Amino acid sequence: MALLGCGVVGTEVVRLLREQADDLTARVGAPLELAGIAVRRMDRAREGVDPALLTTDAQGLVTSPDVDIVIEVIGGIEPARTLTLAAMKAGKSVITANKALLASDGETLFAAAREYGADLYYEASVAGAIPLLRPLRESLVGDHVHRVLGIVNGTTNYILDQMDSRDAGFNEALEEAQALGYAEADPTADVEGFDAAAKAAILAQLAFHTHVTAADVHREGITEVTAADVAGAKAMDSVVKLLAICERVPSATGSGDGEAGAGGDGATGGNGATGGDGAAAGDGAAAGDGAAGEPGARNGRGVSVRVYPAMIPRSHPLASVREAYNAVFVEAESAGSLMFYGAGAGGAPTASAILGDLVAVARNLVGGTPGPVEVTYAQLPVLPMGETTTRYYIQLDVADRSGVLATVAELFARHDVSIQAVRQVGFGDDAQLVVVTHRAPDAALAATVESLRGMEDVREVASVMRVEGDEQP
Amino acid sequence: MALLGCGVVGTEVVRLLREQADDLTARVGAPLELAGIAVRRMDRAREGVDPALLTTDAQGLVTSPDVDIVIEVIGGIEPARTLTLAAMKAGKSVITANKALLASDGETLFAAAREYGADLYYEASVAGAIPLLRPLRESLVGDHVHRVLGIVNGTTNYILDQMDSRDAGFNEALEEAQALGYAEADPTADVEGFDAAAKAAILAQLAFHTHVTAADVHREGITEVTAADVAGAKAMDSVVKLLAICERVPSATGSGDGEAGAGGDGATGGNGATGGDGAAAGDGAAAGDGAAGEPGARNGRGVSVRVYPAMIPRSHPLASVREAYNAVFVEAESAGSLMFYGAGAGGAPTASAILGDLVAVARNLVGGTPGPVEVTYAQLPVLPMGETTTRYYIQLDVADRSGVLATVAELFARHDVSIQAVRQVGFGDDAQLVVVTHRAPDAALAATVESLRGMEDVREVASVMRVEGDEQP
Repeated sequence: MALLGCGVVGTEVVRLLREQADDLTARVGAPLELAGIAVRRMDRAREGVDPALLTTDAQGLVTSPDVDIVIEVIGGIEPARTLTLAAMKAGKSVITANKALLASDGETLFAAAREYGADLYYEASVAGAIPLLRPLRESLVGDHVHRVLGIVNGTTNYILDQMDSRDAGFNEALEEAQALGYAEADPTADVEGFDAAAKAAILAQLAFHTHVTAADVHREGITEVTAADVAGAKAMDSVVKLLAICERVPSATGSGDGEAGAGGDGATGGNGATGGDGAAAGDGAAAGDGAAGEPGARNGRGVSVRVYPAMIPRSHPLASVREAYNAVFVEAESAGSLMFYGAGAGGAPTASAILGDLVAVARNLVGGTPGPVEVTYAQLPVLPMGETTTRYYIQLDVADRSGVLATVAELFARHDVSIQAVRQVGFGDDAQLVVVTHRAPDAALAATVESLRGMEDVREVASVMRVEGDEQP
Repeated sequence: MALLGCGVVGTEVVRLLREQADDLTARVGAPLELAGIAVRRMDRAREGVDPALLTTDAQGLVTSPDVDIVIEVIGGIEPARTLTLAAMKAGKSVITANKALLASDGETLFAAAREYGADLYYEASVAGAIPLLRPLRESLVGDHVHRVLGIVNGTTNYILDQMDSRDAGFNEALEEAQALGYAEADPTADVEGFDAAAKAAILAQLAFHTHVTAADVHREGITEVTAADVAGAKAMDSVVKLLAICERVPSATGSGDGEAGAGGDGATGGNGATGGDGAAAGDGAAAGDGAAGEPGARNGRGVSVRVYPAMIPRSHPLASVREAYNAVFVEAESAGSLMFYGAGAGGAPTASAILGDLVAVARNLVGGTPGPVEVTYAQLPVLPMGETTTRYYIQLDVADRSGVLATVAELFARHDVSIQAVRQVGFGDDAQLVVVTHRAPDAALAATVESLRGMEDVREVASVMRVEGDEQP
C-alpha cells in the first residue's frame, strides 16, 4: 500500500494504520503494510511518520510491485490525476478523498477503473466520515432516489450559523471562522460554493446513476448573504443554509410529486421536523407509485443539481445542523426520508472514511474480485437553472400607498408566479412587503424580481432568497 | 431468486422487483428473476403477486437449482431458521430481515455462511431502510466505535412522543398507537423492549466485533413510564426515550473517557446539540490517542448492551426524533459523532433495505466472490447491568423538615454516588426533592434508591429514571 501526500489527513492515516494495525489485520484477514509515502519535499518534519518511508518519486511508488493499493490525499487536479491513472493502469486499486478531481474528471477515472479492473473508492471525498456514498451506492441501490438535500460545507455552515445565532455580519463571521481554522486564508473555494458544488456533482451522479460534473452544477456562494436576509429568515421561523440540492425534475405530467408538496406544506405547519418530513416523503413515495411502470415518468425530464444559500424552516432537520457540522437529507421512493449527520471535515474523520474504504478494497483483493464500479446508465439531462422550479422569498421597500399590494400581486400574476403568502411589515415610509411564492420556474421568478426593481412604488428590493425544504419540485 | 413469506414486506418486495426491473438489471449487470414464493396458505389473495409463483414447499424452493438467492421475510425463529440454514448449505446466498433469529442464534447462521461460502445480508433487520449495518460493517470498519445510542423501535417512540407532546398517559397513547396501526394488538414485543433488545444485540456485535445475543442485553420496557416521569423530564428540559445503548466500558485506568465526559457536560451547557456532541466526541478521540498502543485499554473491560427508557437533553439530536421514526447515534474515535435517521419500519422502507442487499448479493454472485463475513474476533465480555455506570434522576416526596436534604445527601455519599444537582420543588407537605446523579455503577444507584425507600423523611420515591446522552461512561 502506498500513500500519496502527507499533510493533515495523510499523517492521520499513518497514525491510524499504526494504532489500529491489529484490528485492521483481523478485519481484513491479512496485514496492511505501508510501502511508501510520496511527498513533495523531504525536509519537512512529520510527527509519527517513519522518514524511511518518504520518497519524492511518486510515479515510481504508484507503479512499484510492492504496492497494490494507492491512497491519494494530495488533493487538486495535478499531479493527483496523472498518478491515480498511472496506478490503476498498473492494476493498483485507488482510494481518494479528491472531490475536485472526481467532480471535474471522474468519468476518466471511472473508465480507467473499469478498463483495468481496479477498485476506485472515494467515501472521504464528500462529508468526511459521514457514511454517505456507500449508502447511496449500495444501501439505496435498489430504491429510487427523488432528492438529495444537504449541508456539505462546514466552513459556510459555521459562518451562517454565527450570522444566525449571534447576528454577526458575513465579514465578522468569516474572520472568526478564519481565526478558528474553519476557513482558509483564501476562503474562495468554500464561500463561493465551489467545494459544495463538487460534492453535489458526486452525490447527484451516485443518486441518479447519471453523469454529472462540477461544471453542470448551478453555483451561488454566501458572500452576498446579508444580515437582512438572515433576519428575514428568522421572521419566517426559518434559517439560511448553503444547500447542495440534487433532484429529479418530474415531467410536466408528473403531478404526483405535487401532491408530495402538499405533504411538505403540512410539514411546515408544525408537525415537527421528523413527522412532517416523513409525511412529505410518504406522499413522495405514493406519487412514485402513481408513475409506476413508466420509466420516463419515473425519471422525469432530467435532474437539477445546484448549490445556493436558501431559507429552510427551523422545523426541518437540516436547520438544527450547527457550527461546522454536515448533514445530508435523502428522499427515496421506498426508503422515505433519511438523514445522515456528522463531522464533514477534519483530519481524523476524513482518515476514518479512508480506512473504511481501505478495509473494503483490501478485502476485495483478498477475495480476488473488485467492488462495484460506477454505473451511469441513466444518462439523464442536467437541466439549466432557469427550468428548475424553486420558491422565492422577496422583501420589498414600498411606498405605503393604497393599491401597492394590488400592483405587486398583479405583476407576479403576469409572470405566472403564484404567491403563497404576503406580509406587510412596518408602516409609512418604513413599509415593507414580504412575499413568499409557490414553486415556479426559476427563470420566471428571476424575471419577476427584475420587473419589481423597475416598479415605481418599489423603492428597493431589500432581500431575495430561495426557499427550500418543504414543497417538492 | 426465491422469496420466503409474502406478507406486507414480501408483497412490497415483489412490487419493487417488478417496477424497478430495468433499473435493477442495469445496476446488477444481470436480470433478477423470481423463481418462487413460499407461503403457508395458498388461498389468500395477494395483490400484484403472480399465483403461479406461489408454493407451500418452502424446503423444496430454497434447495431448488433455479434459485441462487433466498430472501427470508417470514420472521420468527422457525421455520425461518431451518430454511435459511438449508439454503446456505445448498450454497444459496441469504437476505433476511429477521432480527429475532439473528439476535438469538446469529452465530449459527454466520458460521453456516462462512462454512458454505454463502452471503448473509440483513440490513433490513435493524431500523428498516436506514443504512446502519452497512456503515457499521464497512464504512466504520477502520475506526474504533465507542458507543451506539439509538431509538430503534418506532412503536415505543410514538407512544413516548405522544406522552411528551400531548401529556397523554401510557395506556391512552398505546391505544392511539394501536388504532393507527403503529402498535400491534399484543404490543408486548415492542413496549417491553424485546424488539429493541434484539436490534441492540445486532448493533453491538457489529460495532464491537464481539459475540452478543438478545439474552445478553439488559432490557426494560416503557410500560412503567408514568406521566410524572415525563413531566419530570420536561422540568429538566429533557425528554424520555426508549434507548438502545451499546458502549465500551473503559478499564478503571481509562480516565481518558472521563475527560470526554467533561466534553459531554459542556455539550449540555447549551452549545447546541451538534456542537456539544461534537466536542464530546472530540475529547473521546483524544482519550483514545492516550490509550494508543494498549489494545487492552482501547477495548476496556468489556461492553455494555442495554435497552431502557431514559431522559436525554432536548438539545441532543435524538430528542427531536418524533412519532414512529428511528435514529441511531454512533460515536467513533476518529469519525466523531454520526447520526442516522429515517423510517424504522413499514413495508416499503424494509423492502428498500432488502433490495439494497439483493443488488449487493447479486453483484457478488456476478463477480464470483461473497461479500464480507462477520468477524467477532474481539470476544469482549458483556458486563452485567450492575457494573455498568449510569446516571439516575430521582424524585422524592419528602417531609419539609430542616435537615432532610442533609440526610438524603449523606445517604448518597454512603453509597459512593456523587450528586450532580438537587432541586426542591413545592413547599410544606408538597415538598419534593429532585436529585440528578453523576455516573456511578448501576448497582450502587439501585441500592441508593432502595435505601431512600426506607428513609423516615422520604414519604415516596415518586420517580426514578436513568439519564443518558451527555456524560461518557
